[in-house]
Amino acid sequence: MIVVMKQGSPSSEIEKINQELQSQNITPEKIVGKHNTVIGLIGDTQTLNPGQIQQLSPFIEQVLSIDKPFKRASREFRYGEPSEVFVSTPNGFVAFGQNCPIVSVAGPCSVENEEMIIETARRVKASGAKFLRGGAYKPRTSPYSFQGHGESALKLLAAAREATGLGIITELMDSDELEKVAEVADIIQIGARNMQNFSLLKKVGAQKKPILLKRGMSATIKDWLMSAEYILAAGNPNVILCERGIRTFDRQYTRNILDLSAIPVLRSLTHLPIMIDPSHGTGKSEYVPVMAKAAIAAGADSLMIEVHPNPAKALSDGPQSLTPNQYQVLMQEIEVIGQAVDRGSQKYLSTVRDAARRQDSIVTV
Amino acid sequence: MIVVMKQGSPSSEIEKINQELQSQNITPEKIVGKHNTVIGLIGDTQTLNPGQIQQLSPFIEQVLSIDKPFKRASREFRYGEPSEVFVSTPNGFVAFGQNCPIVSVAGPCSVENEEMIIETARRVKASGAKFLRGGAYKPRTSPYSFQGHGESALKLLAAAREATGLGIITELMDSDELEKVAEVADIIQIGARNMQNFSLLKKVGAQKKPILLKRGMSATIKDWLMSAEYILAAGNPNVILCERGIRTFDRQYTRNILDLSAIPVLRSLTHLPIMIDPSHGTGKSEYVPVMAKAAIAAGADSLMIEVHPNPAKALSDGPQSLTPNQYQVLMQEIEVIGQAVDRGSQKYLSTVRDAARRQDSIVTV
Amino acid sequence: MIVVMKQGSPSSEIEKINQELQSQNITPEKIVGKHNTVIGLIGDTQTLNPGQIQQLSPFIEQVLSIDKPFKRASREFRYGEPSEVFVSTPNGFVAFGQNCPIVSVAGPCSVENEEMIIETARRVKASGAKFLRGGAYKPRTSPYSFQGHGESALKLLAAAREATGLGIITELMDSDELEKVAEVADIIQIGARNMQNFSLLKKVGAQKKPILLKRGMSATIKDWLMSAEYILAAGNPNVILCERGIRTFDRQYTRNILDLSAIPVLRSLTHLPIMIDPSHGTGKSEYVPVMAKAAIAAGADSLMIEVHPNPAKALSDGPQSLTPNQYQVLMQEIEVIGQAVDRGSQKYLSTVRDAARRQDSIVTV
Amino acid sequence: MIVVMKQGSPSSEIEKINQELQSQNITPEKIVGKHNTVIGLIGDTQTLNPGQIQQLSPFIEQVLSIDKPFKRASREFRYGEPSEVFVSTPNGFVAFGQNCPIVSVAGPCSVENEEMIIETARRVKASGAKFLRGGAYKPRTSPYSFQGHGESALKLLAAAREATGLGIITELMDSDELEKVAEVADIIQIGARNMQNFSLLKKVGAQKKPILLKRGMSATIKDWLMSAEYILAAGNPNVILCERGIRTFDRQYTRNILDLSAIPVLRSLTHLPIMIDPSHGTGKSEYVPVMAKAAIAAGADSLMIEVHPNPAKALSDGPQSLTPNQYQVLMQEIEVIGQAVDRGSQKYLSTVRDAARRQDSIVTV
Repeated sequence: MIVVMKQGSPSSEIEKINQELQSQNITPEKIVGKHNTVIGLIGDTQTLNPGQIQQLSPFIEQVLSIDKPFKRASREFRYGEPSEVFVSTPNGFVAFGQNCPIVSVAGPCSVENEEMIIETARRVKASGAKFLRGGAYKPRTSPYSFQGHGESALKLLAAAREATGLGIITELMDSDELEKVAEVADIIQIGARNMQNFSLLKKVGAQKKPILLKRGMSATIKDWLMSAEYILAAGNPNVILCERGIRTFDRQYTRNILDLSAIPVLRSLTHLPIMIDPSHGTGKSEYVPVMAKAAIAAGADSLMIEVHPNPAKALSDGPQSLTPNQYQVLMQEIEVIGQAVDRGSQKYLSTVRDAARRQDSIVTV
Repeated sequence: MIVVMKQGSPSSEIEKINQELQSQNITPEKIVGKHNTVIGLIGDTQTLNPGQIQQLSPFIEQVLSIDKPFKRASREFRYGEPSEVFVSTPNGFVAFGQNCPIVSVAGPCSVENEEMIIETARRVKASGAKFLRGGAYKPRTSPYSFQGHGESALKLLAAAREATGLGIITELMDSDELEKVAEVADIIQIGARNMQNFSLLKKVGAQKKPILLKRGMSATIKDWLMSAEYILAAGNPNVILCERGIRTFDRQYTRNILDLSAIPVLRSLTHLPIMIDPSHGTGKSEYVPVMAKAAIAAGADSLMIEVHPNPAKALSDGPQSLTPNQYQVLMQEIEVIGQAVDRGSQKYLSTVRDAARRQDSIVTV
Repeated sequence: MIVVMKQGSPSSEIEKINQELQSQNITPEKIVGKHNTVIGLIGDTQTLNPGQIQQLSPFIEQVLSIDKPFKRASREFRYGEPSEVFVSTPNGFVAFGQNCPIVSVAGPCSVENEEMIIETARRVKASGAKFLRGGAYKPRTSPYSFQGHGESALKLLAAAREATGLGIITELMDSDELEKVAEVADIIQIGARNMQNFSLLKKVGAQKKPILLKRGMSATIKDWLMSAEYILAAGNPNVILCERGIRTFDRQYTRNILDLSAIPVLRSLTHLPIMIDPSHGTGKSEYVPVMAKAAIAAGADSLMIEVHPNPAKALSDGPQSLTPNQYQVLMQEIEVIGQAVDRGSQKYLSTVRDAARRQDSIVTV
Repeated sequence: MIVVMKQGSPSSEIEKINQELQSQNITPEKIVGKHNTVIGLIGDTQTLNPGQIQQLSPFIEQVLSIDKPFKRASREFRYGEPSEVFVSTPNGFVAFGQNCPIVSVAGPCSVENEEMIIETARRVKASGAKFLRGGAYKPRTSPYSFQGHGESALKLLAAAREATGLGIITELMDSDELEKVAEVADIIQIGARNMQNFSLLKKVGAQKKPILLKRGMSATIKDWLMSAEYILAAGNPNVILCERGIRTFDRQYTRNILDLSAIPVLRSLTHLPIMIDPSHGTGKSEYVPVMAKAAIAAGADSLMIEVHPNPAKALSDGPQSLTPNQYQVLMQEIEVIGQAVDRGSQKYLSTVRDAARRQDSIVTV
């Protein structure tokens, strides 16, 4: 349930409503949107009477129920406005969201050694990436495959972060490693295979680092948003959704089928930012560029691309990795497509500043 | 198997090779590409010895086997070059292909009455469509649903063709109606549910009208190309492939999942032109424009979009139909995206002329 | 909509109701069940008022709407009773249905030559099969694969029928061949790839031979019943449904996934008899026997098993064919399982006689 | 790689080979089968030369490579023989395996309160169940759904165990709870959503309680066996595989599609015991009995059935739960089917005793 306040409602009035709701064991969440301030009601709202809440203040414009099973993840919860996920990196804040510039994430499947990860970081930064991806802990189908270099790989990511100022995205597979991963990562990735590892979702929901939630390989859009809801409900509002291909009957020429229609569908259902990973989505580097461009045309807010200095010798996922040169070309093409859909990189300065200003006022009451 | 001729090979030499091959019960097919002339060998080529064929002439550069199960549909059969499908319409020739301008097809799911079909045709033509789609015979899941107006609808399509000069695309469900449909249609559509109706494929392969072959809802890319091969093997080289969404585990928010990765995959496997139908692909008009743009960014050669003057009152597929105004806006956006991927409408005059010139020389020996 | 008559309603009263309904452009269909006589109403029943129909006669017990989209195929249409499909073969009538003995169908994928088809027929008959299957027209993914011997194969099937008295089941792919196929076949098969070839469904619905309708490889249960409805709506009440495996994400070890849960689901939704084809369902002969037994345990009314005298040399589907000896062993095992689920072959004499008696009285008014 | 010893090889010879292999950094695992003793080689076997190993002793019959990606889970690893998982319960040892009696597991989705769990345990024990299932920690799609009573539910399971002597199977979702769960559970369940939670697999592989590994909802058979391999490779040989339905395009009438063909496929690929869960497999109690019977006919070694004293009031999964009375009837039917496939409960006394005797001699060297 949300309470939509009239424009220009005084803070004191909102405060009064919040106190009243808290006395009814409801946690209010103030959301300052572009047009309206909205109070999201969290807790056992099924017993609430919208009519009675309406009576709490003459500044209340409307009291609306959310009929979706995912409440905080739903677009209604923000009264139709998209949310932004702000991430602090050494190079400054980066914002993910529908009204923000496209954010590029790139890097190897797994961190192999210091030289390769730092070289990759430098190269992708030069092409415009804001984040370096790289696996320290790798979920592999076979116990006999390379499982990632673990803790030492985290240190190499930290070194790459220091060397380039890029933000770091790396996967968390086990809550035992949460502290160590959170020390290095600016965004913690939950992989497709753990999308319904609800224990892990609750734990990353209870800490502060933003979460990149990959879609499970046979997760419906609803399943996926319910998993996001686990994180949001545990208190972490910073969730980015990442489509990485779904499993279908045809696996001969592509590893998965990249579901780009998830972009407009999510846009209509949720306020959360949307990332697309065409590398896992297709599994073949030759298909990555066109699918990356298609993702931008379809409205993606961010792209995650696997880049490796020497794909032929990669310890994992070589066939789907671009070279740094290929990545550079792709980034130029993406800028062109971005402009064609009115999301060129020059466009957003004021938008982001606006969003940042509003961000300051986003306080969980 | 194909025989690649050296550049500048004299016609007489090619003729000599053809005669020799025919004497071995092989049907040779001469393909004049941008760089090379290639002779495709059709028939029982498994018994042929490439080394012996190489001996037939010093002008033979290479004899290559095609290891794909789809022979004539494979890109190798044209030595890596795309093919063009040229369609004659009252407004002139229209070419479909990788090196041709994007071709727009639009119209209602089914032909309902004269006024609506002619109005729709006028409106979509004004926005840049080259073909009018419209169903006379409708494949419906239920025998109690509207099955199309049949023969009388064909007449209305003919009237719309005359009124606007647009080419006509309409579906053939039954070979009994082939003659009547072929009289009106400039391109005959084989629908998803008949993609493996091999009898029908053979029959449309044995006539001359170009074929639009929709992908079956759970057809693999390979299945689909094998169905195209049925048509090509029966003698009709003019096949356009149309992706219209596949069936997956998630059908809650979209009717199907539009598989845009089919575009780069097909591009690498086949020379045939590729069309995308985001209307059936998503089933919801609100998702059609972004998916149409994504399709162009992914390299589609053509788009099929459902347009209805009054979607709310459509006899079928209303929820996925754009209004003529929405279509007009979309066409402008598509032009912008087209330019961003170097396929803007102004670019192709010389290309098409070139292709047309080579087309003249495409002769099945 | 159905009209349930009270027990002991006089025929004249039923006749009167029928006449009244016909005058309202409704076609009544009298169904004599074990407990009640029911009149099924066919036509535009949406405008009918159940209350008014109830007034037509004091012998009417209830007027019930059918809320399923498949009307005549629904179990409600027969007021909860299963239907029987009676097929005349040289060896006598064979009944398919929930209250009938299990019917075994066996034979090769395709008819290869006279000796093999007659030998196979003799062997499977000796093991208890009532029908011989064998393809004359084969739907093959590739145009270059063996397409069946066509008309000459039909003659061989006729010879096998004469030699053994077995009924014949063979596939129809093209309505042009309907007459020829119907001359030989006791049951006409519509294959998975043509399950939504609605033109063909209408045509086999308009003739009298019973139809075996295979499930499309990605057809939902509802799609499938809607296709059965096409046949029923066209006037042919004799439809048997055959599950033959569906297409899923896993195709490594089996050709398809045999969906045995379709059996209880169909049982609850429809009155039509259910056949299971574990040969196509698994694609490997080693898996056929256990899946055949599982099908019986799950309640299948009939089994279709591919049997070939020499699977290693079969022109098609060899890997999924049993030898005649393996089939003989399987049939013994099936009899044991049949008894365990109360469907042993000895049990039904009186049931079938009863059904046959009622069959006589099934008349489309 | 495995070393097959000749029949009657002296222990000292096997010991000698083991020592030699250990000196090459290979861990040998002695498997005493019905016919042969086999030494499984674990470690980096890719560098081993089978010919050289053959030279180690004249008592070596054969040295065989395992070409499957799952090594210890493969049937070859036991030279074609099935393995047994022996579980100690208060009522005695229970063995799961191809040559063992069918083991029945029953109980509610989640442990709701003391009365219901003890009543259910008593009732299912009376019908022949050997294990009580019941969730303390529940993986739920929504964070707002009942998540299980956790630790207090574990205490109730312990009470039910004491009251009835049944073994306990309950799900582990988080390694933090491993100790507590292992204290109560005789078999620890890893749920479908955690099938590729590789961290959790490694942890349950490193402890001694037997593991029930449910198939992920879109896991291929190979994925599933690779996940079993994670547990086996970590040192726990006691893994039972449980099929519980896969996700397909059709979810209208059943929650999942129960893949019974997994039974013969697994039988040919692995030595591990196979359990079927028709409750989750279908999601509807009315379909559970026939699918349970079909599972037995297809060769399942064990069944897991949801039973609740009052399904209509269950906190979770009510629609798929049988009543205790329905379960009793089903157990009688299953006994009949079991006999029909030669797995009746009376048959196994000597087999199990044999297996137990050999079990004593299964030692990881």
